[in-house]
Amino acid sequence: MDEPKKAGILQYDDEKHWGRLIYIAKKHLDIWSHRNIRPDYGQMKLSYMPLIFNVQQNGITNTEISKKALIAKQAMSRTVKELEEKGLITSQPLKKDKRSYKIHLTDDGKKFVNDSNTKMLGLIDEYRKLVGDKEFDITVDVLSKIIRYHEKLNMETDDADE
Amino acid sequence: MDEPKKAGILQYDDEKHWGRLIYIAKKHLDIWSHRNIRPDYGQMKLSYMPLIFNVQQNGITNTEISKKALIAKQAMSRTVKELEEKGLITSQPLKKDKRSYKIHLTDDGKKFVNDSNTKMLGLIDEYRKLVGDKEFDITVDVLSKIIRYHEKLNMETDDADE
Repeated sequence: MDEPKKAGILQYDDEKHWGRLIYIAKKHLDIWSHRNIRPDYGQMKLSYMPLIFNVQQNGITNTEISKKALIAKQAMSRTVKELEEKGLITSQPLKKDKRSYKIHLTDDGKKFVNDSNTKMLGLIDEYRKLVGDKEFDITVDVLSKIIRYHEKLNMETDDADE
Repeated sequence: MDEPKKAGILQYDDEKHWGRLIYIAKKHLDIWSHRNIRPDYGQMKLSYMPLIFNVQQNGITNTEISKKALIAKQAMSRTVKELEEKGLITSQPLKKDKRSYKIHLTDDGKKFVNDSNTKMLGLIDEYRKLVGDKEFDITVDVLSKIIRYHEKLNMETDDADE
């Protein structure tokens, strides 16, 4: 595979640029979110998104959210504090472990998440018109499977590291 | 669409979580790259990747790469300097505009990009086995189309902002 001239080929549909494809798709979604996803009042930081969109109906612990959103627990505590100050979430320490706490959405938080999901669904509608329903569903399924593959891979690597 | 109970549903295959799907897919690819993509010597920073994997065979200007990889030009200059110090790229100022310069891969840089692409193709083989060739090709095509959609959207917004 040591063919230097191949380094010149740069097409989105070139499968070896999967990394670029995912990187750029994420960047564009960041730009879109920054322009479209915000509470009625004020600005949302991009760092809030992975946290707030992972809080489930019956709450979630910081340990669970750290695993789900792949954020280090230390990095989370500042975001949690800021989202609490904005009145979008609450956090309560768990009795059994003082370093653990449970996060719930407030009513404002639920409204924000629902409004955002509605806007996201509007974007998805545009995607579907563009690429076709069947193709979009396949893409969601493929990305889900790839994520589960990496989750498994990381568990194995983490085990080997211990 | 104001149904708070919907905020509780969190499944990867739930289309409204497209944002999470792309975010997590990117995070996993970061982890994989961090573990697998590095030159023979030493460590690669994640911030190097979008730059070095966008340098084309006949070189690329900082303006082009900034557009392609969605990195601010200011943020790029430090990365360019570090990659030059590692001997993976060279940069030459363009005569017509002193703020512009052209980036080329060195032979070591080309080798690194080719080795990395080979590793990436190995990962893609695993993906293909997992999800099916047809489904993977559709996913690459859908992501390409979505990226082009956002590129167009941003051009329109930028025009409106001016």
